[in-house]
Amino acid sequence: MNLPPHVTLREVGPRDGFQSLKTIIATADKMDIIAALIDAGITRMETTSFVSPSAIPQLKDAAEVMAGVKREGVIHAAMVPNATGAERALAAGVDELVAVMSASEGHNQANVGRCIDKSLSDLDTIFSQAQHRSVPVIGSIAVAFGCPYQGAVPFNDVAAIASAYIEKGADSIMLADTVGMATPIRVHRMVENFRKRFGDKNLILHFHNNRGVAMANLFAAVTVGVTHFDTSVGGIGGCPNVPSAAGNLATEDVVFMLEDMGINTGIDLAKLIEAAKLLEKHLGQKLPGQLVKSGPVHSKVICD
Amino acid sequence: MNLPPHVTLREVGPRDGFQSLKTIIATADKMDIIAALIDAGITRMETTSFVSPSAIPQLKDAAEVMAGVKREGVIHAAMVPNATGAERALAAGVDELVAVMSASEGHNQANVGRCIDKSLSDLDTIFSQAQHRSVPVIGSIAVAFGCPYQGAVPFNDVAAIASAYIEKGADSIMLADTVGMATPIRVHRMVENFRKRFGDKNLILHFHNNRGVAMANLFAAVTVGVTHFDTSVGGIGGCPNVPSAAGNLATEDVVFMLEDMGINTGIDLAKLIEAAKLLEKHLGQKLPGQLVKSGPVHSKVICD
Repeated sequence: MNLPPHVTLREVGPRDGFQSLKTIIATADKMDIIAALIDAGITRMETTSFVSPSAIPQLKDAAEVMAGVKREGVIHAAMVPNATGAERALAAGVDELVAVMSASEGHNQANVGRCIDKSLSDLDTIFSQAQHRSVPVIGSIAVAFGCPYQGAVPFNDVAAIASAYIEKGADSIMLADTVGMATPIRVHRMVENFRKRFGDKNLILHFHNNRGVAMANLFAAVTVGVTHFDTSVGGIGGCPNVPSAAGNLATEDVVFMLEDMGINTGIDLAKLIEAAKLLEKHLGQKLPGQLVKSGPVHSKVICD
Repeated sequence: MNLPPHVTLREVGPRDGFQSLKTIIATADKMDIIAALIDAGITRMETTSFVSPSAIPQLKDAAEVMAGVKREGVIHAAMVPNATGAERALAAGVDELVAVMSASEGHNQANVGRCIDKSLSDLDTIFSQAQHRSVPVIGSIAVAFGCPYQGAVPFNDVAAIASAYIEKGADSIMLADTVGMATPIRVHRMVENFRKRFGDKNLILHFHNNRGVAMANLFAAVTVGVTHFDTSVGGIGGCPNVPSAAGNLATEDVVFMLEDMGINTGIDLAKLIEAAKLLEKHLGQKLPGQLVKSGPVHSKVICD
């Protein structure tokens, strides 16, 4: 098995997770959880999203959160659905923008309320705003591995958006399996196709666990040398409409697997579990992640 | 990626699952669920366990269940912790026995109430009973990938028990990651070591999801040609003491992944999801498996 020595996990719980929860976490509690994640060794985070507060009230405190969590050595990114969001995010001093588009027309419409062409034309403004302040941009592509409306998504549709991002100056491309339709063979094909087309452009993969396959997908990607993934403390995240069905890969479960295989993540697992428990406390509900229940090893329980 | 054309899933929900549930499912309901699983294409099943009814009241109807579920073309196995259980199982007409031992002294004591030497000496009786009736025996080894009491388990300890099983005439060996301590690299090492020592002896792997890594482990095993796995409808199973923390791989999630990668399981996914929903109905609680929530594809929900 050919494994990379290091993998970077970009923590997306404070954005993808917090926006999906029915509970609105208090701003001070968000800051505590984010601080605990940074204490555990997280260095890249999608810290919030600058979206319409009426659409996603869970993140209406985006600017306050961003102002309160800055720390040396940590890259705080924010997702922005459009140029207005980008302007607010840059004013709030984010370190990185995450532009978002979907690889399918139906999902783009549902997610950001416009067609792909309109989203593409908005990119010019977002990128020029970002470049003006020397802030890098991640170009994220939702439903890259399959769409709940149209089913399979041709690679060319993904590549067309990636090309647009790269042409405009994106620092890296994030491909999201938004509703958990990927399997390891699709991950291998995607990585192979992406590299053929875009070479060594920084690639970030983001797997939801709607069908229980997310960890196998991440492992499959690691074996072909992908080293950047989005994960979420406690496995929160996903889809506001079916909270029990989705969720990101739990950061602590991924850290357990990778570190056990000798891959360095720079994250202290015990401290990360503490951060997940803090989240669980603030939410008052069980998290989807497994390690927060079972512990790293030696769970001292009797099973058969 | 080098993938096998076919994988056989041995359904263990009716044993590993039912024994772990707080709810005692009525015998008739068990039979309905088992029938639904067979209708979906399950051909190998661990249908019950012949254990002390005071220890595991959930399975006190073992003989009744076994009498009611026989069907042409389906192999019904039963787990037996000792010679008494084997005698009862054989009298009930099981097609296959599953002998059980742990690779660690501490877990064997906790699980079957005796030391490894005593379990080993009991094997002679179990195997001669089985051979007398021409019933094959699976030799199962619990905590083969790690023990909650002692931590790491040396391969030689696993091999010693496997050797004893094979010497006595076991048809196949099942290695269980009982409390979810395996990772893909440990699975590859285990398969490699096992083959070096025992050649092509039938190997069955059984992964619990305590740390969220079970699907990655199964995928890793498939890529090195392992073709027999234990899985459980709805992902039930695990440990009576921490029901939320453990669980087997959900059969339907595994079928989704394998079939999507072109690996034939002989199982009809839509029918299997119906079987999982029937189980959910009888239990009155959500199951850990994902597919029963999300459906196979095209879930028609809006996510970002």
